[in-house]
Amino acid sequence: MARTKGDHEARRRDVSEAVWRVLAAHGFSGLTLRAVATELGATTGLLTHYFPAKRDLVAYALDLLHERTAARPRRAAEQGRAAVRAALLDILPLTDEATASNRIWVSSWDTALSDPALGADYADKYGASRDRLAKLIATAQDLGELAPGDPSDLATAAQSFALGLVVQALFNPAAFPPEHQTALVDAYLAALAP
Amino acid sequence: MARTKGDHEARRRDVSEAVWRVLAAHGFSGLTLRAVATELGATTGLLTHYFPAKRDLVAYALDLLHERTAARPRRAAEQGRAAVRAALLDILPLTDEATASNRIWVSSWDTALSDPALGADYADKYGASRDRLAKLIATAQDLGELAPGDPSDLATAAQSFALGLVVQALFNPAAFPPEHQTALVDAYLAALAP
Repeated sequence: MARTKGDHEARRRDVSEAVWRVLAAHGFSGLTLRAVATELGATTGLLTHYFPAKRDLVAYALDLLHERTAARPRRAAEQGRAAVRAALLDILPLTDEATASNRIWVSSWDTALSDPALGADYADKYGASRDRLAKLIATAQDLGELAPGDPSDLATAAQSFALGLVVQALFNPAAFPPEHQTALVDAYLAALAP
Repeated sequence: MARTKGDHEARRRDVSEAVWRVLAAHGFSGLTLRAVATELGATTGLLTHYFPAKRDLVAYALDLLHERTAARPRRAAEQGRAAVRAALLDILPLTDEATASNRIWVSSWDTALSDPALGADYADKYGASRDRLAKLIATAQDLGELAPGDPSDLATAAQSFALGLVVQALFNPAAFPPEHQTALVDAYLAALAP
């Protein structure tokens, strides 16, 4: 039976979903052709058509992670301290979807630290993210909504705070329900008030 | 030739060193019997004597990480804000040794998040660490060296800040030399001054 382009796209979406679910449940250390095949209800033989080697599967998973992160819903653009708050909340595991995505990000750090090219990509990504946050902080300072201080250092500290909170919340979701994470962000910003 | 107890201990130390070097260079995702054997200049056959299965090697590596962390040098006990500062600096990758250890910790998160029992251990560990930090913060507040506020929330935020800084510094050591990390800690504490 002839395969249509629609079949191909649908199958590709199914594979992506299966890879994502395996990553969310087992991380990169649990990402195997067999696990994806089981999740997909397919044979590993079919999977080797998409991923001839393990590294192809890992590369695909990393692309998927970046794609989904770029496409994820974000809080509406605001200005001043509200924009800084929104940017920090956008990082945190406040929903099931954001929890899955963060769990996959944290899991990817092991892979990224072991691969110089990928590690450099991650360094750039976190650097770009600090720069965006520094601009929001500078605007909030101009508006008199945050205390003076080097915006770049303040952004580094705030991004550190958010990333470290992600890790602790992932390990102990019961101790870090969304309202507690949000309260911690608000307390963090209150300490930076003018 | 008869093996003495000294031989056995020396070999065990060699194996530990080899496992540590593999972890520091390649993380848990690169931890294989073959990699450890190569590092040790031994056969994988010899290694299977110590680690019959991959999970035995991972369990040994995790024990080693906990042991070395417990035994690592720490800054001398101080009081008040200086003690909080010392506790935060003790977390950061300020030396080659602390960098290797942190790189292995970050790498272990993938494994720990995939294993409920191990994940619960990590949750306890980070909780205990927050509690210790909260006590130091409460003392610093009593001494009038830090502003009032819930010590537990302040400890969570400070530990988040330190863990997130670890991650960013590991990916970009050039952007985060020890003096920059230290300055970020000092700026963080300055914002919490009374």
